[in-house]
Amino acid sequence: MTTGRYTVGIDFGSESGRAVLVDCADGRELASAVYPYQNGAFDESLPAPDDDILLETGWALQDPRDYVRTVQKTVPRLLAESGVDPADVIGVGVDFTACTMLPTTTDGVPLCLLDEFRREPHAWVKLWKHHAAQPEADRINATAAERSEPWLSRYGGKISSEWFFPKALQILVEAPSVYRAADRLIEAADWIVWRLTGIETRNSCTAGYKAMWSKQDGFPPRAYFAALDPRFTDVVDEKMSRQISSIGGRAALLSDEAAAWTGLVPGTPVAVANVDAHVSAPAATVTGPGTLVVIMGTSNCHILLGTGPAVVEGMCGVVEDGVVPGLYGFEAGQSAVGDIFAWFAAQGVPPEYLEAARRRETDIHSVLEQEAAALRPGESGLLALDWWNGNRSVLVDADLTGLVIGLTLATRPHEIYRTLIEATAFGTRMIVDAFESGGVSVDRIVACGGLPQKNKLLMQIYADVTGREFAVAASQQAPALGSAMFAAVAAGAAAGGYASIVEAAERMARLGTERYRPSRDAHAAYEPLYREYVRLHDLFGRDPGSVMKTLKRMRDQIGEARSA
Amino acid sequence: MTTGRYTVGIDFGSESGRAVLVDCADGRELASAVYPYQNGAFDESLPAPDDDILLETGWALQDPRDYVRTVQKTVPRLLAESGVDPADVIGVGVDFTACTMLPTTTDGVPLCLLDEFRREPHAWVKLWKHHAAQPEADRINATAAERSEPWLSRYGGKISSEWFFPKALQILVEAPSVYRAADRLIEAADWIVWRLTGIETRNSCTAGYKAMWSKQDGFPPRAYFAALDPRFTDVVDEKMSRQISSIGGRAALLSDEAAAWTGLVPGTPVAVANVDAHVSAPAATVTGPGTLVVIMGTSNCHILLGTGPAVVEGMCGVVEDGVVPGLYGFEAGQSAVGDIFAWFAAQGVPPEYLEAARRRETDIHSVLEQEAAALRPGESGLLALDWWNGNRSVLVDADLTGLVIGLTLATRPHEIYRTLIEATAFGTRMIVDAFESGGVSVDRIVACGGLPQKNKLLMQIYADVTGREFAVAASQQAPALGSAMFAAVAAGAAAGGYASIVEAAERMARLGTERYRPSRDAHAAYEPLYREYVRLHDLFGRDPGSVMKTLKRMRDQIGEARSA
Repeated sequence: MTTGRYTVGIDFGSESGRAVLVDCADGRELASAVYPYQNGAFDESLPAPDDDILLETGWALQDPRDYVRTVQKTVPRLLAESGVDPADVIGVGVDFTACTMLPTTTDGVPLCLLDEFRREPHAWVKLWKHHAAQPEADRINATAAERSEPWLSRYGGKISSEWFFPKALQILVEAPSVYRAADRLIEAADWIVWRLTGIETRNSCTAGYKAMWSKQDGFPPRAYFAALDPRFTDVVDEKMSRQISSIGGRAALLSDEAAAWTGLVPGTPVAVANVDAHVSAPAATVTGPGTLVVIMGTSNCHILLGTGPAVVEGMCGVVEDGVVPGLYGFEAGQSAVGDIFAWFAAQGVPPEYLEAARRRETDIHSVLEQEAAALRPGESGLLALDWWNGNRSVLVDADLTGLVIGLTLATRPHEIYRTLIEATAFGTRMIVDAFESGGVSVDRIVACGGLPQKNKLLMQIYADVTGREFAVAASQQAPALGSAMFAAVAAGAAAGGYASIVEAAERMARLGTERYRPSRDAHAAYEPLYREYVRLHDLFGRDPGSVMKTLKRMRDQIGEARSA
Repeated sequence: MTTGRYTVGIDFGSESGRAVLVDCADGRELASAVYPYQNGAFDESLPAPDDDILLETGWALQDPRDYVRTVQKTVPRLLAESGVDPADVIGVGVDFTACTMLPTTTDGVPLCLLDEFRREPHAWVKLWKHHAAQPEADRINATAAERSEPWLSRYGGKISSEWFFPKALQILVEAPSVYRAADRLIEAADWIVWRLTGIETRNSCTAGYKAMWSKQDGFPPRAYFAALDPRFTDVVDEKMSRQISSIGGRAALLSDEAAAWTGLVPGTPVAVANVDAHVSAPAATVTGPGTLVVIMGTSNCHILLGTGPAVVEGMCGVVEDGVVPGLYGFEAGQSAVGDIFAWFAAQGVPPEYLEAARRRETDIHSVLEQEAAALRPGESGLLALDWWNGNRSVLVDADLTGLVIGLTLATRPHEIYRTLIEATAFGTRMIVDAFESGGVSVDRIVACGGLPQKNKLLMQIYADVTGREFAVAASQQAPALGSAMFAAVAAGAAAGGYASIVEAAERMARLGTERYRPSRDAHAAYEPLYREYVRLHDLFGRDPGSVMKTLKRMRDQIGEARSA
């Protein structure tokens, strides 16, 4: 029989949801469970039986029922596996991808679950990587620049098509009836908390990073929204809320319905919703300035804490109290990292590597990594731009694409693989340099997420390219652990939790023992390669008339003509 | 029992030799035979038992014994298969890749067959695509430019590392003892004629296109060679010959030894050696101006006839009487075409395409072609520079490399495949445009070689990109047929052959019935893509400080450091 105090953290990802049950005393994970979403992330058609409805390029949707199923399938397994008494579970916390948003009725029913709207793509959940709202993002940026909106500088001068208002405006422009029927437009993070507690709240993290809200100034003014579209004037008051709950707080208590889904006790405190990347920082022990947290997975997200505001080119955002109360939380990102390696493994590697993987009883990534590890920096003559899914920081441009240069008849797949790793490392280096140019120092780096545990070559290349030591968070599921830590804060010290996330991190978070230290030689060898990367970056990334942008425009026009 | 008059043409390629026996009356191929070279083209090590001797990057060698074996293995099969009486074979013609050259003794014994030099890479045959003499080519070009050598303009202002004197100079610089021991430096084309007849001759085609010789001015002056290296001053008189035999003529008569190898009659006339691309023009019916012949295979070679000299940027060369007596023959080329598609099929295509090929009982190229055919120009958003093996025309730079831009997470292999085809078509279009800018008109195009028969999509894309009709030579082995036609000219009209190659072409060469006509829509759609290709071409190809050139220099330095 276990005793003590426990919390549950649930991390809602792109393809699955993952829950952990941890001991509040030391963060030890007693049980974990994963639910692969039945409908995953869909980008070609709506799910059956409506899979005759095709989606345009750049769309990426989810099914909100998968979130509820995650709760229903994972939490009971945690309790069963750990043997913990539900009465000893003192809190539940959740984190989500963001901005992942959906339209609902006043009662929180997703419009996509109503027969009337089921076959309308705009009624479904727009996943973070839905990129089809780029025209709306362009309009939002241009209008903000024209009006010299002061909030724009907090986001590096440009907001992304992945964010809340571009997605909301796309619904208004392309599906006005869905927009009209949507009583609420809400982050999926807040929606699942609503489903768990019966009470609608809005968290400060997504409001700040994804919806241009700040603690001091609130949302942009009505006149700004009116300038985008008269029908959009009152989007905040009609569809959202100005009452923003700070992260680190308690949203509400677990409802009877959600208690029945999970086996937890009704009335268990539920934390204010949070974002996967941001919640990972304290889970990786980082609650102060100087240490960059890189959450490495399908994409990279970078979290850095500072003592004051700063203007950093192309950052995703800076939010006071956005990560840790009392500090300014900076966010940056790379739109595709593991996704690029996965793309390459699936689309670009001939059978011999798969056969080698079978022979060595490993996977194709390990084979590529082993072969690539023998190469020196620059030896292949290859260089790539890591923009397979656009550039989130420093350029903030979803229209950018990937590039490989230096190919010859002797080029081998593992050389390209290494080049892709290096390209993402150069992308991280660009972000580190941008932070330091903006006066926010980066002394060391802590990595977490799925990739660092899998690929040592990747970690060493990142250390060599950035010239900084990398540590790795001990937990392989930092977001879920972070959510469990915020659950302990929501429970409060009196209940056996903690008074603050800083205290929770001191007790519940740990680093692994491994350190990746930059090799002096490799760092020196990467300097000239990085300079060439920066040249390509500026050549294709900063010129709106570049070949890359022109090709993308042509592709979009052909796509539109084809679907018209 | 067949009657009539016949000739044998032998085409010596990069991986195999191919012979045909044709009827002089109408060019009908009665028999053909292929000999795959035992040692192929080797670029990693010398052949066994000396395969512990590794080759540096850029090397490509052949074994001269493979040429003799080709003769020994193919010609007897032609006679056996066709049932033709050897007495009715009135001539033998050969064509070769070029510049493919070797050092020999006074008697024509290749140095690589002497025990003393067997383990010395420089003693072997340097294949056309041996690119390691780029430093020597650079020196040759710079010295020629300094001295304002008048012959330089005949070669578009720049000669290639693939040519005769860069290869010869590389031997001198890197293996002076081989250079000293070489009584003769000779094109493999002329060497095999020497082996067939016992008499050394030098053909006007390789002398003109690959060794800076012209009918009017001969070779460059001694002072020029002296400026390259004092030991190189008398390279022509010491190692070569100033007596150049015009193509279309007779070299000598078949020796007793070669008659024994082949089953042909001693004394059969043997034509002056020729080059595979050049000999293909008459085999593709082209003996006059206005029609570009594109020989499409592992690389593309372009032959165009003009009535006078002209300065065309980056041409391989213009030689009076170089292709057809009485006309100026222009040559241009693309260093890799089929080689790029083969590289992609081997290095860049995942197993599902191979499985589809098995299911459909076809090959991977057909599967890629079928999938790629459904795409519209520009639809994939991809664009490539076709420089996997450098650029032979218009830029004449072996240090250029391949590039792919526009990659996304949705990019599929058949999209890349189509993009590679398009890139090679754009490369041909650049050459067509250069010819027309130089005042040499290109009204229509005739394709021959291995690719046109295999890939209809490729042919249509070439027609659409160039905006010109493509016909295809009827013969699938145009070079061998061309050699057989020159054999008929070497035999002469009195013996049942022809007085000139023009007459031979009228009777022996035919076009296939298929025509690829440019689609107006597709041509219009390719115009903006071609403009972007030209931008990339100039961006990376014309700037010696470009990222592409810098990466290549870094790669070379690392390669040198590694092998040092």
